[in-house]
Amino acid sequence: MFGKCLENVKATCPIVHNITNYVTVNDVANAILAVGASPIMADDKAEVEEITSICSSLNINIGTLNERTIQSMLIAGKKANELCHKVLLDPVGAGASSLRTKTALKLINEVHFDVIRGNVSEIKALALMAFMTQGVDANENDAITEKTLDATIDFAKSFATKTHSVIAITGSTDIVTDGDATYVIHNGRAEMARITGTGCVLSGITSAFIAANDDTLLSTAAAVSCMGLAGEIGFENLQKGDGNATYRNRIIDALFNMTGDTLDAGAKYEVR
Amino acid sequence: MFGKCLENVKATCPIVHNITNYVTVNDVANAILAVGASPIMADDKAEVEEITSICSSLNINIGTLNERTIQSMLIAGKKANELCHKVLLDPVGAGASSLRTKTALKLINEVHFDVIRGNVSEIKALALMAFMTQGVDANENDAITEKTLDATIDFAKSFATKTHSVIAITGSTDIVTDGDATYVIHNGRAEMARITGTGCVLSGITSAFIAANDDTLLSTAAAVSCMGLAGEIGFENLQKGDGNATYRNRIIDALFNMTGDTLDAGAKYEVR
Amino acid sequence: MFGKCLENVKATCPIVHNITNYVTVNDVANAILAVGASPIMADDKAEVEEITSICSSLNINIGTLNERTIQSMLIAGKKANELCHKVLLDPVGAGASSLRTKTALKLINEVHFDVIRGNVSEIKALALMAFMTQGVDANENDAITEKTLDATIDFAKSFATKTHSVIAITGSTDIVTDGDATYVIHNGRAEMARITGTGCVLSGITSAFIAANDDTLLSTAAAVSCMGLAGEIGFENLQKGDGNATYRNRIIDALFNMTGDTLDAGAKYEVR
Repeated sequence: MFGKCLENVKATCPIVHNITNYVTVNDVANAILAVGASPIMADDKAEVEEITSICSSLNINIGTLNERTIQSMLIAGKKANELCHKVLLDPVGAGASSLRTKTALKLINEVHFDVIRGNVSEIKALALMAFMTQGVDANENDAITEKTLDATIDFAKSFATKTHSVIAITGSTDIVTDGDATYVIHNGRAEMARITGTGCVLSGITSAFIAANDDTLLSTAAAVSCMGLAGEIGFENLQKGDGNATYRNRIIDALFNMTGDTLDAGAKYEVR
Repeated sequence: MFGKCLENVKATCPIVHNITNYVTVNDVANAILAVGASPIMADDKAEVEEITSICSSLNINIGTLNERTIQSMLIAGKKANELCHKVLLDPVGAGASSLRTKTALKLINEVHFDVIRGNVSEIKALALMAFMTQGVDANENDAITEKTLDATIDFAKSFATKTHSVIAITGSTDIVTDGDATYVIHNGRAEMARITGTGCVLSGITSAFIAANDDTLLSTAAAVSCMGLAGEIGFENLQKGDGNATYRNRIIDALFNMTGDTLDAGAKYEVR
Repeated sequence: MFGKCLENVKATCPIVHNITNYVTVNDVANAILAVGASPIMADDKAEVEEITSICSSLNINIGTLNERTIQSMLIAGKKANELCHKVLLDPVGAGASSLRTKTALKLINEVHFDVIRGNVSEIKALALMAFMTQGVDANENDAITEKTLDATIDFAKSFATKTHSVIAITGSTDIVTDGDATYVIHNGRAEMARITGTGCVLSGITSAFIAANDDTLLSTAAAVSCMGLAGEIGFENLQKGDGNATYRNRIIDALFNMTGDTLDAGAKYEVR
């Protein structure tokens, strides 16, 4: 089923509008191309409505937000909602500064996001500020382990229900839920954390997957599994002397060569 | 003849001032270095006149334009004109938003461009808005085919004559014309479209070629052929499992290793 | 001793706050990860104080400065000083425009920098404007040769004494001094100049080294040697057909695989 989601991207070649950070933007663009979609980057408030109108989905990433681009994110998000385009939020660094946390919350309040994807700290920081004044401690050790998995799933489901968004919490184990069904995904490698932008790249390709598929929950889970599997395949292709720079390229290469069959064969997940 | 143009870049190592987008800027810089020239990126209006004064050419790319950088483009362009530096415009996304189309037109009206390089949709969008109220339909299928080649050449020549610029329309077949003579270039591979920024990279190296050579038409054609040939050589060097990330590196590597002789041996073009 | 400095980075995994240019930012992030530290990029004045507070050091690079980010640099630098975090300045292009020279001087006047790292032209431009109205000619051929080495060391020591900063002048030979002791480092390869951003990458990893080590002079020298050695190892790993794009990846890969023992075995330097 994940494979079919990828094949739908290749078949429809959706255009993804990205308002994203300047650190990882090139990798995001190449990864979107790798899975068979097409990226446009545009962040000036004078054009984001028009640009998002010609696209199929919108990827908002606050990684290097500033006063100017925050306005553009809000304008583009509202327009995309109006047009019923799928919209994804990557709240990079939420919890690390009040500007990031507040901006992410403002976005969530003013724009409906079909998907919110981040690491557990980012998502917990948002949830804590947004809805839950106690019971969630974003300061604790946030790693998802066997021991914390059930609690993290419950938290994710609760946040999904409250936001009406698919919540994707990615880390050593990935959780994707709409508040009802939950995918627990076991693809990926720890070494991916030593590359800048694997999260941003995942948000980029997820924006392509949800644009090409009606089922947002399923296609988000497929994108998360696809990225993790690309991390596994890329790692297998490393040779002596290779490091994180080559690994970065190998992951995007693996996305490029991924077929629906490869994804179906390599996907490791359970539905709860 | 193309080879001599490349050798002139290596011999004179011109400095190219780039006001370009943040998506592909790193590749543009490495590609300019690869062909033997030197890049400077500077986009603040307080310094672009001074920076462009110490350079040999100016590359203006509107790929992630904003209110601030549009001003800098105009200021830098006028200064470069005053100094008789060669100036190139890459109207990325012209036609996709009115901000882009209007900005490109404003630039063309207030700055003389020695070269305007884009894909056929971008160039047609400009021409349509600038001079031609009918007879050019930028909405039609814009691919340059055997069937449309003659018409596209006529269109390019007309736009070149009106702008007094060398017009480079690049795609599966490339057209470079000054309104009088026309190079039709057959280098390149379709797979280059699966990499972000091959157009931006071409504009970057073209800015180096025109800086190092008096003949703008010839050296633009040489740069276009050089980029296409690098795409062919890079593709031949791909191995099993490689994808668009590695292909990107292989193309810049091929530019780095390109000699005048290699270019002359591999160039595929006709003059009309 | 250099090896121990690197091992301290890996052991403590410091977080480095970078306000840096958009040309080479991705390489800077991946290089910081490669040596075992963690990068954050944030440049909006509304958040830089908060972000720098959760970091261990601050890397300010003026490569694509603008009015907005200059303010952020000043705010972040003062906050980092207040918190006694180590702060590094990379005055990219000082001397190439008055905006760059003035901004670098303003930064030096208002922020204490533990390290100032640049090429000889940049450092001379700063020194000339800052303190020395004669006797330093930034327009002469600035290459550090056998002949000019002693004079350049004297100049660097004088500038270090006046700024109370460790001065790192990098080029074919590297000089690192606190005005008292001086490391003259012979690692590196001339081909590194054909890659964009090797200087920026060095500033990024130096910011990680000084964060993880009390001795700023020693750890800056270690970072400079580490980068040069990565350039040597990366070059040895190149194959036929490789160029500057692959070389870039090979250098970051070499940083990733560098151990303290490798660094100690490969470091080439003298203390004067």
